[in-house]
Amino acid sequence: MRAMYYESFKQMKKHLGQLDKWLVAAAAHAEAKKFDSKQFLSLRLVVDQFAFVRQVQIACDTVKLGAARLTGKEAETHADNEETLEQLRARVSSVIGYLDGLTAKDFEGAATLTITQPRWEGKTMTGADYFLEHVQPNFFFHFTTVYALLRQHGVAIGKRDYLGALTQSAPR
Amino acid sequence: MRAMYYESFKQMKKHLGQLDKWLVAAAAHAEAKKFDSKQFLSLRLVVDQFAFVRQVQIACDTVKLGAARLTGKEAETHADNEETLEQLRARVSSVIGYLDGLTAKDFEGAATLTITQPRWEGKTMTGADYFLEHVQPNFFFHFTTVYALLRQHGVAIGKRDYLGALTQSAPR
Repeated sequence: MRAMYYESFKQMKKHLGQLDKWLVAAAAHAEAKKFDSKQFLSLRLVVDQFAFVRQVQIACDTVKLGAARLTGKEAETHADNEETLEQLRARVSSVIGYLDGLTAKDFEGAATLTITQPRWEGKTMTGADYFLEHVQPNFFFHFTTVYALLRQHGVAIGKRDYLGALTQSAPR
Repeated sequence: MRAMYYESFKQMKKHLGQLDKWLVAAAAHAEAKKFDSKQFLSLRLVVDQFAFVRQVQIACDTVKLGAARLTGKEAETHADNEETLEQLRARVSSVIGYLDGLTAKDFEGAATLTITQPRWEGKTMTGADYFLEHVQPNFFFHFTTVYALLRQHGVAIGKRDYLGALTQSAPR
């Protein structure tokens, strides 16, 4: 079980690495089209949905806080004050660095932990439910929304940039 | 490990149940606004991305084929010929029914299986890698894209309809 949590966070870390590449592609797109790349940060798929900058912040926080709550290993706090793609890349990089420091052993006992957070007003979830029902779906929600916004605005990324490299063996 | 696969598919099954509710909300929206609900099926977030109908089909197939390959339990085939929201709901229902028939024991040995599919041209993945790198991210990609399309077109759904009910305990 602890190995599966570890592997799942490693997979989300890989996706954050892909997100970093998307941000590089977005900056290149802005440069080629001669617009200020800061304009990406205010994009929204829907007028009453969080803007791009917040989607990136929440994707980062969902993984970071998920891992911190399930392992008890404290993570750096972030001020949510990013104003450029470069600053968002730094945040992604900080979370990847934090996840790099975790081991499978750190997730020992994670499934049976009691998890809460301020907005739940005292309600709790087991570590297992928190991970499956909250961390993973929320991460992919915000991660996919960031992807959709960049695709909708002409950034040259595709499905392979979403998945990243697959661990495949050659034909026998 | 087998329990974790089972729990993860149960979670994706729950998300398919949420998707079914979104389709009901989409039909209600079309009726209220007096347009043909079939129009949802051709929506796209990006002009060179699959349309809504295909996004729903792939979300369903990703879970169904993922579970079938990891358990060896044959699943119903679907012809990809849906033309209405009702027909898409029937497809979702069929996949939920299939998943309902699986047990944790069915996933025994799943991690070390050798998985392939036609488009990989002979390349293979372990069951563990296939699940983490392929099934889950692809499922959430298409699931989130369906959600985004409905949100973008005024259907009354929100983040809670994405996550579904959380397994929470009351404050002590």
